[in-house]
Amino acid sequence: MARLLSGKEVVLSLNESMIQRVEVLRKRGVLPCLAIVRVGERSDDIAYETGAVKRCEKAGVAVERFQLPETASQTELLDVINRVNCDDSIHGCLLFRPLPMQFDDETVRNALLSEKDVDGITDRSLAGVYAGTKQGFPPCTPAACMEILDYYGIETTGKRAAVIGRSLVVGKPAAMMLIQRNATVTVCHTKTVDMPAICRKAEILIVAAGRAGIAGKEYFSTGQTVIDVGIHVDENGSLCGDVKFAEAESIVGAITPVPGGVGTVTTSVLVKHVIEAAERKQRK
Amino acid sequence: MARLLSGKEVVLSLNESMIQRVEVLRKRGVLPCLAIVRVGERSDDIAYETGAVKRCEKAGVAVERFQLPETASQTELLDVINRVNCDDSIHGCLLFRPLPMQFDDETVRNALLSEKDVDGITDRSLAGVYAGTKQGFPPCTPAACMEILDYYGIETTGKRAAVIGRSLVVGKPAAMMLIQRNATVTVCHTKTVDMPAICRKAEILIVAAGRAGIAGKEYFSTGQTVIDVGIHVDENGSLCGDVKFAEAESIVGAITPVPGGVGTVTTSVLVKHVIEAAERKQRK
Repeated sequence: MARLLSGKEVVLSLNESMIQRVEVLRKRGVLPCLAIVRVGERSDDIAYETGAVKRCEKAGVAVERFQLPETASQTELLDVINRVNCDDSIHGCLLFRPLPMQFDDETVRNALLSEKDVDGITDRSLAGVYAGTKQGFPPCTPAACMEILDYYGIETTGKRAAVIGRSLVVGKPAAMMLIQRNATVTVCHTKTVDMPAICRKAEILIVAAGRAGIAGKEYFSTGQTVIDVGIHVDENGSLCGDVKFAEAESIVGAITPVPGGVGTVTTSVLVKHVIEAAERKQRK
Repeated sequence: MARLLSGKEVVLSLNESMIQRVEVLRKRGVLPCLAIVRVGERSDDIAYETGAVKRCEKAGVAVERFQLPETASQTELLDVINRVNCDDSIHGCLLFRPLPMQFDDETVRNALLSEKDVDGITDRSLAGVYAGTKQGFPPCTPAACMEILDYYGIETTGKRAAVIGRSLVVGKPAAMMLIQRNATVTVCHTKTVDMPAICRKAEILIVAAGRAGIAGKEYFSTGQTVIDVGIHVDENGSLCGDVKFAEAESIVGAITPVPGGVGTVTTSVLVKHVIEAAERKQRK
């Protein structure tokens, strides 16, 4: 049976170090603060927001919420982002996307100061994760995958890794972060021929296809580490991932569960980025 | 024997279409113009500059040269870049890097307007090639690799590709451009274990290792397309690539020579980007 890579365990460890770092900042008179900017009332966004607020509270990080109606104009949203940029007491900003139709995504996301871009949406953050430099921040989900690998001491240097998915939110940044960690990375996607054969050969497999149960037993091999990024609701109303967990568990060496895996770590990474942003500002 | 992917042939075809596009622009009163900004007198830079100027002349593109002494200050260089940005008659800018020690690379490269960044050095261009969008421009060398694949009608969708090298100038952008073209891409580098086995399985192999003759017969397989990005001077004073040409030629399906391959196409791509920048400005 595979070793279970528990997101909860990673979160406990992250919390511990985050509480200490917040303590240090507070002694210097700095209270790290996350701004959450939400347009409309999408239930996914609200659920993520609720989770993020709880994690912030736990770590001693303040939250300031900005809510706009779904019908808000671009000018109104840019005004809010400008307030976030100008407010020295705010260190990071989470802006939910995709935005409704009336917004120009490129203009809006690049209006945010990259120093406060804790979810990696600005061009400067994209360039940072692509180049492997510390400018801006990577998106929280692939960063959570790396936290899990780090926490469980899974070596990446010289390892073969496969990433299923080429989105800017997970697949591409996960690939870039693995390359930065000296893995030999193959990026698979909907046009890939014989994906199972490629995935079987990977020592580290990150599945971010966005399709429930897409990866079954033909994708796995002995000793593999499997990170499942998917979150879906199955026909019984239970949460499940992109990986057929039962099939994987009997073959691979280590695997993240869904729920309780990557998703659990993501909001903690967001909070960690806010603390990091506050620390970077101190160092300036 | 492998089919020879001649850079000269690609250049001839590019020239033809570029001359036509310049003609259209000139009829609208626009003369496309490339600014070349060089600090110091590095012989590589001067050689590239000479080649670029010739190609510009051939295509009917103007060139404005800015030369600074190796001892120039950052303020002086930023002044030049600012002049380039403000000058409406300049459409693209080539800035030679690496810059001498006294310059902050990030500040200097991002001082350039991304609309004029025809060599893909700004964060906005990096984000563009990473995201697969048309903002800014990709670096000219990986773009030249794609031109060669396009000209010779080499299908990329669903194909396995391997890229040796993870630099921001060639390896990473080549990988991103191949992913964008629906190839399944593996990025290999100095920490890759058993690189020959990975490369043999690739239907398209781009070698940008920066080491003469690193890829020998164990890297190749029947039917493969091999793009050799390396340019070196061998012990006899002749130019050679990263690929052992004679060994590859007898095995693979198609291969670029050195000289006469990718390097030949690169400066033409630069000129093409200048024309494209002038056209984009017209469309605004």
